[in-house]
Amino acid sequence: MRARNLAVVLATIHRSGPHTRAALAERTGLTKTTVSSLVADLLEAGVVTESGTVRGGERGRPGVAVSLSGHRVAALGLEINIDYLAACVVDLTRTVRLRRVRRADNRNSDPGRILEELRDLVKDVTAEAEAGGLRLIGAALAVPGTVEGGVLRSAPHLGWRDVRVADLVELPFEIDNEANLAALGELWFGAREPDFLYVSGEIGIGAGLVVEGAVFRGTFGLAGELGHVVVVPDGPVCRCGGRGCLEVYAGQDALLGELASVGDLVARLESGDAEALKACERAGRALGVALTSAVHLLDPGRIVLGGIFAPLFRWLEGPVSEGLRARLGQMRGTPPALVVSGTGGDAAVLGAAGLIIQQILAEPAQMLGL
Amino acid sequence: MRARNLAVVLATIHRSGPHTRAALAERTGLTKTTVSSLVADLLEAGVVTESGTVRGGERGRPGVAVSLSGHRVAALGLEINIDYLAACVVDLTRTVRLRRVRRADNRNSDPGRILEELRDLVKDVTAEAEAGGLRLIGAALAVPGTVEGGVLRSAPHLGWRDVRVADLVELPFEIDNEANLAALGELWFGAREPDFLYVSGEIGIGAGLVVEGAVFRGTFGLAGELGHVVVVPDGPVCRCGGRGCLEVYAGQDALLGELASVGDLVARLESGDAEALKACERAGRALGVALTSAVHLLDPGRIVLGGIFAPLFRWLEGPVSEGLRARLGQMRGTPPALVVSGTGGDAAVLGAAGLIIQQILAEPAQMLGL
Repeated sequence: MRARNLAVVLATIHRSGPHTRAALAERTGLTKTTVSSLVADLLEAGVVTESGTVRGGERGRPGVAVSLSGHRVAALGLEINIDYLAACVVDLTRTVRLRRVRRADNRNSDPGRILEELRDLVKDVTAEAEAGGLRLIGAALAVPGTVEGGVLRSAPHLGWRDVRVADLVELPFEIDNEANLAALGELWFGAREPDFLYVSGEIGIGAGLVVEGAVFRGTFGLAGELGHVVVVPDGPVCRCGGRGCLEVYAGQDALLGELASVGDLVARLESGDAEALKACERAGRALGVALTSAVHLLDPGRIVLGGIFAPLFRWLEGPVSEGLRARLGQMRGTPPALVVSGTGGDAAVLGAAGLIIQQILAEPAQMLGL
Repeated sequence: MRARNLAVVLATIHRSGPHTRAALAERTGLTKTTVSSLVADLLEAGVVTESGTVRGGERGRPGVAVSLSGHRVAALGLEINIDYLAACVVDLTRTVRLRRVRRADNRNSDPGRILEELRDLVKDVTAEAEAGGLRLIGAALAVPGTVEGGVLRSAPHLGWRDVRVADLVELPFEIDNEANLAALGELWFGAREPDFLYVSGEIGIGAGLVVEGAVFRGTFGLAGELGHVVVVPDGPVCRCGGRGCLEVYAGQDALLGELASVGDLVARLESGDAEALKACERAGRALGVALTSAVHLLDPGRIVLGGIFAPLFRWLEGPVSEGLRARLGQMRGTPPALVVSGTGGDAAVLGAAGLIIQQILAEPAQMLGL
């Protein structure tokens, strides 16, 4: 009961801003004594802070304001991707306090070695966060593959299968697909709209559907594999074993061809290079087909293009929108809006940290040992 | 508070079978006096009944058993489909008490005329249910189209757009897509598994995803339009305006060709007719492609083929399973199981009635005016 009340008080402060103790009692229906005792615990744990005065309570008398504290409690976001490792620290107010990226080539890598490198990155970031007075409460890891029951089941581009990521950190730990976490990153650090399909363009292509602020995960947590939606049933073989998947036409390798980076591709596109424009046009048309199927099945509020699709949005927008309009037109007055992600390449690692912040706000007693 | 307690007591009886009043008090944490008063109201409304004795309460003394009553409270399920109107009455124990089907040709029809016919059917069925001592508490209508905010937005095969179905019955009323309601029908009257994708083969093709016993509806209630998932991006034009949609290859019209009914098609298939076998093979291959995309995006527990796909299951199973295995194999150890629906052609109308029963069980005070 005390655990539940702690969560209720914290949720009230989180959703509606600073409150006096009297106003908290009024809003939550708890007694002033109970509220004072709960607030004392939250202050002690560094979850809330006292700052200035606000009008509060029935009679509107000014009192000391209790607000969410960004000074002490924080979460660690981690990401293993094909060509980098990343970490970030986000405080309870969802302010990003640290970001670190280490370039790497993780294709067809040894999981043990990469996890050792990640452990090293965690050590550095943890030391830096603690030096800044932050206490890390939990960590979440984004991976470019399917996750089932806490196990990385298959990450074809890493060449990993059935990897159990244990003892990475001595903290409560979550692991999830990078597209799901990037969708949460977009929700909390990007446009903050509650309903959208986040499309993550990387070497692989994933998607995370957010409905009313929650990620849709399907039955086994494997939903949103947009990269393997069939675009051409007898098309080229995909590394998943299927044929004509979206990834074959619009994955990073298909877009870049011989080019070394997305920056190079953008430069070519800007100079009007015919081959680069053709690759983007082809990727955009394939995205239009796959997203038509996705809209019919998932019914997203809007479509957000992220990852490498963000810097390429200028060139992808036309063919994708045209495909959606032509194919969806009669079924839905207008197709969902197509927009560019507001989070840049950091969406997944930020979403990972945000997931832990969400857990702390939802279950402070359990997460903080109160 | 009383409304919530009525729901708690009813849920306990519904989920765990007959209870004595003492056992109900023990299970729910309510006082015996409160439980007795709540049970009196439920008895009065005909929601529960007293029958025999069971052991109950802490000391295990036998007492009068209170159980769900199928004798009084019931729900009306309705369906408008392309070639029939249907109605059914289901009692609180989810026993089907009445079913009525009227053949009709509703293609490109006048909504006003069809709704008038349905109103007539409602009158007959209501009279018959009331003559049997049943009290209808609410009604739900299944339609072959997309529903948004209680309005039938688009039913291309009926030729209806933006039809507001008002004053059909003088009861609490719901309207939903036939595939969603058929999925609920499969959940409550078919295999009763909590996780599956119900595929509704009719003149159109729809799908209803059930995860942990709840239908996934997407952002605007338009999810599950499997019939318009793209199978061949430059295939034949579909009546939705798109190209190469699943419906073009596996809808009833594509399967039947010149034949008059599914029965005729089954007879041809049984006699080894080459053209019929080819049509089924083609439909099965297209279903395999569209369901691959659906599995990647929706992550269903299993796939249930219903509607006209049920009598054709023998011929569809091979090409569909083969397509799923070949395309999904490396991403998921085994593809979701492919099974035939256990509800026959009645799934949608039964699910419609079941939806109202679910509402009564969840909110007895509100639905029954207690």
